[in-house]
Amino acid sequence: MKKIEIATNDFLIPMPMALIGSKEGDQANFMAAAWFNRVNARPPMVMVALIKSSQTTSNVVANKEFSINIPSFDLMEKTDYCGIIPGKKENKAELFDLFYCDLKNSPMIRECPLNYACRLTDQTELPSHIVFFAEIMHAYCEEKFMTQEKPDIEKIRPFILSLPDNRYWYVGKYLGNAWTNSEL
Amino acid sequence: MKKIEIATNDFLIPMPMALIGSKEGDQANFMAAAWFNRVNARPPMVMVALIKSSQTTSNVVANKEFSINIPSFDLMEKTDYCGIIPGKKENKAELFDLFYCDLKNSPMIRECPLNYACRLTDQTELPSHIVFFAEIMHAYCEEKFMTQEKPDIEKIRPFILSLPDNRYWYVGKYLGNAWTNSEL
Repeated sequence: MKKIEIATNDFLIPMPMALIGSKEGDQANFMAAAWFNRVNARPPMVMVALIKSSQTTSNVVANKEFSINIPSFDLMEKTDYCGIIPGKKENKAELFDLFYCDLKNSPMIRECPLNYACRLTDQTELPSHIVFFAEIMHAYCEEKFMTQEKPDIEKIRPFILSLPDNRYWYVGKYLGNAWTNSEL
Repeated sequence: MKKIEIATNDFLIPMPMALIGSKEGDQANFMAAAWFNRVNARPPMVMVALIKSSQTTSNVVANKEFSINIPSFDLMEKTDYCGIIPGKKENKAELFDLFYCDLKNSPMIRECPLNYACRLTDQTELPSHIVFFAEIMHAYCEEKFMTQEKPDIEKIRPFILSLPDNRYWYVGKYLGNAWTNSEL
């Protein structure tokens, strides 16, 4: 087993795909993103790293609110489209049926099984991206995507991105329960 | 399609599983983590959110170096064990065959198909967790996990965590190419 040094850009992990919702005045905008995750337990907080030049980044800086919408794999084509077409060029809000909570700058996508309305708490500027930290203020799902009143990944069917090969993957089968192996 | 408001803690996305390597003096330690992702393009940077009370957190603060090791699903049990047994209690380094690069506080696991040696650049303290930002200084793989000189997710077979249901999942089949749908 010989380890080979590879490019530091070859950071290959299963990344979750989402659509980040934001507002520019009255105009809702959506951007595909995979560089996000949970970062705090209580209160529930997330981070999302967005490229500085995007319309979404400007909107989040201006409004301090955004949404995270988790698409099923049947929304793969629309999600991908929102990752390559700039909000400055195209009205991507027309692709979806939207809904809102009391965070009026956090437009959410009804077709996505999971929606999170987030309020910005902090940000860190990096060379190419800005990392936004936010608290999840409201979360939404539908009964058909839930089991015993909790969202169920097998019903939601999110999908995954790998880089730098730029490929999408299904979430596979159940492998085991987490935080159970206290002996080896 | 009626949206139901759910708990803000129900942040269900496919999260990548990793083992975070660090050093306390001469002692290597490993902790399972799922709250990490890429955050910057050039240079390649990552973030990892770690609970404040962990030995790994103390080690990263002290040494400003750590490793990210991506296990295959056949390392699920050992990975899970490293997520529940504190480094303060057990010598988890004995579970693995280790190797090092010039970052001497970034112990890496030979059994993991992918290894990243990281240097801390910044950190953000949140209520329960600290978010560490780091640059990937070196990356390692093995030929058997690569296709055309690049790491291949179908050969590496990483696995995924979902919360708050605490379940592990395989990465599923190929779904499509990313950043290609410029028309709908």
